[in-house]
Amino acid sequence: MTITITALCSISEIHRGDDVAEAIVATGHTFADHDIVVVTHKIVSKSEGMVREVVDEAAYRRLIEDEAAEIIRRRGPLVITRTSHGFICANAGIDRSNATEGTVILLPTDPDASAHGIRMKLERALGMNLAVIVTDTFGRPWRRGVVDVAIGVSGIDPIVDLRGTPDANGRTMEATEIAIVDEIAAAADLAMGKATGCPVAVVRGYEWAPGPGRATDLIRPDAEDMFR
Amino acid sequence: MTITITALCSISEIHRGDDVAEAIVATGHTFADHDIVVVTHKIVSKSEGMVREVVDEAAYRRLIEDEAAEIIRRRGPLVITRTSHGFICANAGIDRSNATEGTVILLPTDPDASAHGIRMKLERALGMNLAVIVTDTFGRPWRRGVVDVAIGVSGIDPIVDLRGTPDANGRTMEATEIAIVDEIAAAADLAMGKATGCPVAVVRGYEWAPGPGRATDLIRPDAEDMFR
Repeated sequence: MTITITALCSISEIHRGDDVAEAIVATGHTFADHDIVVVTHKIVSKSEGMVREVVDEAAYRRLIEDEAAEIIRRRGPLVITRTSHGFICANAGIDRSNATEGTVILLPTDPDASAHGIRMKLERALGMNLAVIVTDTFGRPWRRGVVDVAIGVSGIDPIVDLRGTPDANGRTMEATEIAIVDEIAAAADLAMGKATGCPVAVVRGYEWAPGPGRATDLIRPDAEDMFR
Repeated sequence: MTITITALCSISEIHRGDDVAEAIVATGHTFADHDIVVVTHKIVSKSEGMVREVVDEAAYRRLIEDEAAEIIRRRGPLVITRTSHGFICANAGIDRSNATEGTVILLPTDPDASAHGIRMKLERALGMNLAVIVTDTFGRPWRRGVVDVAIGVSGIDPIVDLRGTPDANGRTMEATEIAIVDEIAAAADLAMGKATGCPVAVVRGYEWAPGPGRATDLIRPDAEDMFR
């Protein structure tokens, strides 16, 4: 199987009220049925007006405390939070990079809904079935470095459950739920880079089944959580 | 930028003593300079004889306790461990899927060295510069589902540090260390699938700088760890 990941680098600058799907279509990129369109949340947040002014470091710190639904850990300036959506990440997901000086970018209020809206518009404009994934960049507790993960999903189930399917030796596999939308988010980030003005990537050739899943399905229930 | 990920599905069954690099070359796949060759650890472990017989569940449980350098958490049958390499993962990284009935597959003793050995042989056989990443499938504390990560690396630095580079708005970015080898591992898993007999994938088109990094560089130092 060959998968291709193509970054779209000619997306126009997105401001409050701009239509992300329209900006994607306007690139003139040739989409195909079953493409997965991966969108960094920053342009989604900007289009939804989720940008805040912060006059100084203290204002930024206050905004983190306000936005966080729960503080999970604190050390020095580093705050690990649960967001209102239920994601556990640093600084309530508030992003200072890729924001205009003196402003920060919050997460979309409902990234699954954002993904859904973008998908509906893209499918209508392009006349094909697509999946849309909205991403953010998260740290991990025991591994250095950040990776992109899915925070909004539409049209594709976030997890593929291989339980009950035979492995390469014909044995029935144990619980193997693969977080495919996180793997797709990570793959897309490789093509987009971090600072190059390519906020969208198109993943082609990965076989996925349409499904009603949401990124919030990825949140591990409290009862299963051993590390909060 | 377009990245392609191609799974190699005609790798011969690997047994103790078999040469993984030779098996990859024997597929006849056409490699290009600067390809990244991603190898699931299972075939590396098999080639290195890291397969153990387990007669029953109790024997499997004992092996986990023996192999783990440290037990981090326990709940019911689920054991979160630190491995001898320093990775934090379930069941000391011991894998029952894709093993012959009655056996389990351990992690390679030194996956960075395994990756290095494979790279040296591939580069010699193919006459080009490559990177090699050995992967395993890890769970995450707060997100459901597993994703592939890098446990062995050769030829490529595992982390790209964007600190000091300007973002899309010309602002100097804050600490943004991207765990690119984990993103590459995740991307490769999409192409390989889990049960389809494709234990190798080739990632082409991602620009990377040669470097002396190791996967153990990804292990977060104890002093930075807030969740052990």
